[in-house]
Amino acid sequence: MQIIDGKLMAARIKEEIAAEVKQLTAHGERPPHLVAIIVGHDGGSEAYVANKEKNCNAVGIRSTNLRFDESISEEQLIAEISRLNDDPEVDGIIIQLPLPRHIDTQKVTEALDYRKDVDGFHPINVGRMAIGLPAFRPATPAGIIELLRRYDIPTKGKHAVVLGRSNIVGKPIATMLMQKALPGDCTVTVCHSSTPDIKEKCLQADIIVAALGVPGFLKEDMVKEGAVIIDVGTTRVPDPTAKSGSRLRGDVDFDAVSPKCSWITPVPGGVGPMTNCILMLNTLAARRGELPA
Amino acid sequence: MQIIDGKLMAARIKEEIAAEVKQLTAHGERPPHLVAIIVGHDGGSEAYVANKEKNCNAVGIRSTNLRFDESISEEQLIAEISRLNDDPEVDGIIIQLPLPRHIDTQKVTEALDYRKDVDGFHPINVGRMAIGLPAFRPATPAGIIELLRRYDIPTKGKHAVVLGRSNIVGKPIATMLMQKALPGDCTVTVCHSSTPDIKEKCLQADIIVAALGVPGFLKEDMVKEGAVIIDVGTTRVPDPTAKSGSRLRGDVDFDAVSPKCSWITPVPGGVGPMTNCILMLNTLAARRGELPA
Repeated sequence: MQIIDGKLMAARIKEEIAAEVKQLTAHGERPPHLVAIIVGHDGGSEAYVANKEKNCNAVGIRSTNLRFDESISEEQLIAEISRLNDDPEVDGIIIQLPLPRHIDTQKVTEALDYRKDVDGFHPINVGRMAIGLPAFRPATPAGIIELLRRYDIPTKGKHAVVLGRSNIVGKPIATMLMQKALPGDCTVTVCHSSTPDIKEKCLQADIIVAALGVPGFLKEDMVKEGAVIIDVGTTRVPDPTAKSGSRLRGDVDFDAVSPKCSWITPVPGGVGPMTNCILMLNTLAARRGELPA
Repeated sequence: MQIIDGKLMAARIKEEIAAEVKQLTAHGERPPHLVAIIVGHDGGSEAYVANKEKNCNAVGIRSTNLRFDESISEEQLIAEISRLNDDPEVDGIIIQLPLPRHIDTQKVTEALDYRKDVDGFHPINVGRMAIGLPAFRPATPAGIIELLRRYDIPTKGKHAVVLGRSNIVGKPIATMLMQKALPGDCTVTVCHSSTPDIKEKCLQADIIVAALGVPGFLKEDMVKEGAVIIDVGTTRVPDPTAKSGSRLRGDVDFDAVSPKCSWITPVPGGVGPMTNCILMLNTLAARRGELPA
């Protein structure tokens, strides 16, 4: 069994990004610029934004946080987005979710210029990705593909079973894995809450992507010998032995499952650390006026 | 075994559309208006356009064919599309493919206002559909869903195996069938040219959608007793007994497979006749300023 070390890989990718940014600025160009829109106050968002800012600073990407009171109207917010769309010194824009209830999240997402939508949530990017065209892809599934690529894990003709059909993980990773491209070219099965026999489906899988958000869901007796396991779950569970009183737990019963695997991502330290890297890679591509292929 | 009679169902849907158009015009409103853009000359396109026109006339939808010489530049074609986008008396626009080689099909497709893209090929529609939002959906997969709905064929929790991953059939029907909506809510497996064990996958299927374009591909020994078979193949094969010397053949070995099925679509007369209906339903929705849910 080998560990897919997302933390190590993320550190390596950050070095690559830093080198590319340095090359840009050495030629007198401005660095890439990522703007985060934050409406109101949300503990999770604040932590995410702080982490994003730290990462950007570390690689030389300029990071701006635009904070708005939660009383901002939808119209005002869309006007702010328009202004950022038109600003030639802004490359990437992300909108921290959730937004207050009086704001239509979908409408605001679609107000973004898709060429600055580095989160890959705009329907144009979702559609372009499905069609197989260059597009900004959402961070988590793109991070998984990047891990498969960098660890050179064979995917062509393999049977990938995706657990979960969310718009930000399950559906896009299924789409990516079935494309005639590498990593990918898999036979793909998508299982979810209405699947009656998830265990049987998992037992057939060469690759399992677990993205249900159910801690410890994937057990030893559901996994074929030699399978590749990608754990996307990150649920905070109580842990009296931890300083904070809690810890992150994945969708995979790691201790029991890992001995059967060829490759497995741990939680934390697997898929999670990759997401910020993808956001920065996307911002770098946006700075160059490109959509990632 | 029961036949899913697409011809009968299409006739019924056309009556419904005709009644709705009549209601519109009885209130003094203009009828829906569908514009087809045809560049150069292509036998297949001509037949398709003639058939579309006949269908539109039959239900009271206004149909216009805009023909351009194959020497038209990409820029000129996009200018024509812009004009149609802005024309309040045009509801739906379709672009006959293939376009001449000097024109970038994707660029032209993206030039359409997605609210008039009744073929459902614009990335915004592809993306909105994937996300589960109202969108124009491409005719063939939407026609399959409509057949499943009208024949009240159970889909929730069923295992659907899709053969083929094209952008116009395989990928979108997989996306539709996996959504938490009915018809749909299936466990979905997508197989394709890189799948090593298609037969084993098919034998597990409650529903098979065959969209490989390989005549007679799906054989009796690949199908579970009681399966639902949707045949999307329409390959023209030589047939000395036919007046024209040829006939349409599906991806399913119908005579051998059908006795094992609970439901099956014939070729011709199954999925095919539904596609024009979907185009007209989409045009009617566009006339109302709606995207189909």
